[in-house]
Amino acid sequence: MSQPAPAIPASPAGSVGVVETRHLDLPRPVQLDCGRELHPVRVAYETYGTLSPERDNVILVCHALSGDAHAAGLSKAPATESARDGFGAEERDGGRGQGLGWWDGMIGPGKAFDTDRFFVVATNLLGGCRGTTGPSSIDPATGEPYGPDFPVITVADMVRTQRAFLDVLGIERLAAVAGGSLGGMQALEWAILYPGQVDAVVAIASTHALHPQGVAWNAIARDAIMRDPAWQGGRYHGTGRAPDAGMGVARMVGHITYLSAPALDDKFGRRLQFADDLRYTITEPEFEVESYLRHQAASFVKRFDANTYLYTSRALTYFDLARQHGGGSLARALEGVSARTLLIAFSSDWLYPPSASREVEQALRALGKPVELQVIDAPYGHDCFLLEEARQTPIIRRFLAA
Amino acid sequence: MSQPAPAIPASPAGSVGVVETRHLDLPRPVQLDCGRELHPVRVAYETYGTLSPERDNVILVCHALSGDAHAAGLSKAPATESARDGFGAEERDGGRGQGLGWWDGMIGPGKAFDTDRFFVVATNLLGGCRGTTGPSSIDPATGEPYGPDFPVITVADMVRTQRAFLDVLGIERLAAVAGGSLGGMQALEWAILYPGQVDAVVAIASTHALHPQGVAWNAIARDAIMRDPAWQGGRYHGTGRAPDAGMGVARMVGHITYLSAPALDDKFGRRLQFADDLRYTITEPEFEVESYLRHQAASFVKRFDANTYLYTSRALTYFDLARQHGGGSLARALEGVSARTLLIAFSSDWLYPPSASREVEQALRALGKPVELQVIDAPYGHDCFLLEEARQTPIIRRFLAA
Repeated sequence: MSQPAPAIPASPAGSVGVVETRHLDLPRPVQLDCGRELHPVRVAYETYGTLSPERDNVILVCHALSGDAHAAGLSKAPATESARDGFGAEERDGGRGQGLGWWDGMIGPGKAFDTDRFFVVATNLLGGCRGTTGPSSIDPATGEPYGPDFPVITVADMVRTQRAFLDVLGIERLAAVAGGSLGGMQALEWAILYPGQVDAVVAIASTHALHPQGVAWNAIARDAIMRDPAWQGGRYHGTGRAPDAGMGVARMVGHITYLSAPALDDKFGRRLQFADDLRYTITEPEFEVESYLRHQAASFVKRFDANTYLYTSRALTYFDLARQHGGGSLARALEGVSARTLLIAFSSDWLYPPSASREVEQALRALGKPVELQVIDAPYGHDCFLLEEARQTPIIRRFLAA
Repeated sequence: MSQPAPAIPASPAGSVGVVETRHLDLPRPVQLDCGRELHPVRVAYETYGTLSPERDNVILVCHALSGDAHAAGLSKAPATESARDGFGAEERDGGRGQGLGWWDGMIGPGKAFDTDRFFVVATNLLGGCRGTTGPSSIDPATGEPYGPDFPVITVADMVRTQRAFLDVLGIERLAAVAGGSLGGMQALEWAILYPGQVDAVVAIASTHALHPQGVAWNAIARDAIMRDPAWQGGRYHGTGRAPDAGMGVARMVGHITYLSAPALDDKFGRRLQFADDLRYTITEPEFEVESYLRHQAASFVKRFDANTYLYTSRALTYFDLARQHGGGSLARALEGVSARTLLIAFSSDWLYPPSASREVEQALRALGKPVELQVIDAPYGHDCFLLEEARQTPIIRRFLAA
């Protein structure tokens, strides 16, 4: 279904302004699903808006695979590169380096997550490479970066870390937890792990468990990194080499899965770089889409750590609410949820297809839980969650106003 | 549309028996689209059935990216590995090494390409690594394998080579030229390059030009190979190293694009290798589909040359009938076609989608050319052309009998 005409028009939307990523060290170890515990854990975060005296207006925003804590506003550090995914998003930024948050179109005064009303908190996820403890952090046991010694983490571990972080901030309840893709997985995991502490869930372009083709794409991306000799079993830090070649391939695979075939057709078609003049080359890009992919690969490896990619990709393939919490039953997994749930999916998203959101919707509905699914008819594939801000905004505003 | 109920039941189908790949050296250089000429050119080929005295019963069968001249029967050389793609095909063979031709289900007495009636000829394509001259052949100028000095070839070059090869055999006309995927591209190219010499075209799971997403997947696969340091700019022969790591990634990417998401779901689901017991590992396969992909990668690199993969992939992305022959117009490109054309597409094929075949159908129909399109509703994606033999057989038999 398409979303209805906007019932609540967005007020003139503004920016949260110049922001700075801060860091906080958790006081206690984080207990992990794998059985290990992690300590110390530092969390990188940003906040937008004002915490109410009752501390009841907090929205936690969770990012996707390649995101970070800089979700909105303009970064204080001018060198910070944007973590915004997707060609549309990137172009609208006017390219890298301007430091606009990855969900700036959604967070701010009058926006979907309205900072005139809510106190929005964004953290870099556990295992990240943008300020929160991850494989590139120093292992206190060795004084060297963890690398492959970093524990294998899960989406639930990411959520436990966010919980511990909010504890330090003195925030017990969340008015909402929201995110797209892997961020949506975290939002759903919150609703199950901490049912009494979440009022509303907004899970966009997400799923209760990635389908096997998505598992396969992630496996291929990870293999591309691990087969790069420069990966060195994950101990590349300090060697002067990094698996940029493999990371580039991983990024290219990911990138195509984030887009739809018609979107690629629309943007690039079969246009050649040099008009209709074939150059008969194997090594050089010949089609515009080939050149674009190489550009994506080159810019990604500059801002992202390969091990974080591996760990985060593994976590999102493990994520499976039915297996984790329901003995194989999604319904049983969702039994304890008390939050209202808004699911948004996009018609052209073949990585996190609308059918996955519908399964969550139907399971919640069968349990009598308040749930709403909006499938937006949009052409850009999975990247829609970053691009279709104008159409998501009235849906989210209305849901949060209820 | 689904195909109608079989009008002509296939007779009890048999095997062409034990076969042997032979080789033939072309007497003259092949003139290539890139402007270079290639000499000497050797062609690996097999034939099945009997050439009629009038030499009017010849069907040329063209293979896809990873195929070879061994299209039917049991290879005389027991060590020959099968070039059959796709999990279904592979399993039905009982695994590698039994030497069954890649289209054995389609070629033989009573089969779709009926050797009781037709003389079926299959060649390894130009640029191949299974007996026909390609990048791993010796460059007479240096005495070393061509490697990256091999000229960049096109589908038209492959067809010109086949034409020159058939000249040597004394075969002027083709009763039909047939193939799936890249093989179907060759069949369509035949109809345009040699319109007076082709009576019928059977192009299965093919297109007049790969869509941009397909171009992107091929670019990623090639990049995976070329980014492998063991590729060494293409001069890996004789170094004791080969870009197996990158080739494996290329194969995994290809493999997933050959299958449909529902087929993967059906075959693997999200089943773990060790029941519901996560091992929390980054480096080892955890899901069955991950293990399967690694197996596919490992077995492919044993039988295929990386440079041939690069050159063949480049050729199939270049293929664009409208650009090559119509100044951008598919209709103009097809104006000279005199062959009857049968197009078969599969509903779940997202790499060579039915829409591409429909574009060819509509262009031919608008020109008043005899054309038939059958879209078979089948779940296995692009690999259907190798798997759905039983359903293709009556369609092809009826078409060839007309």
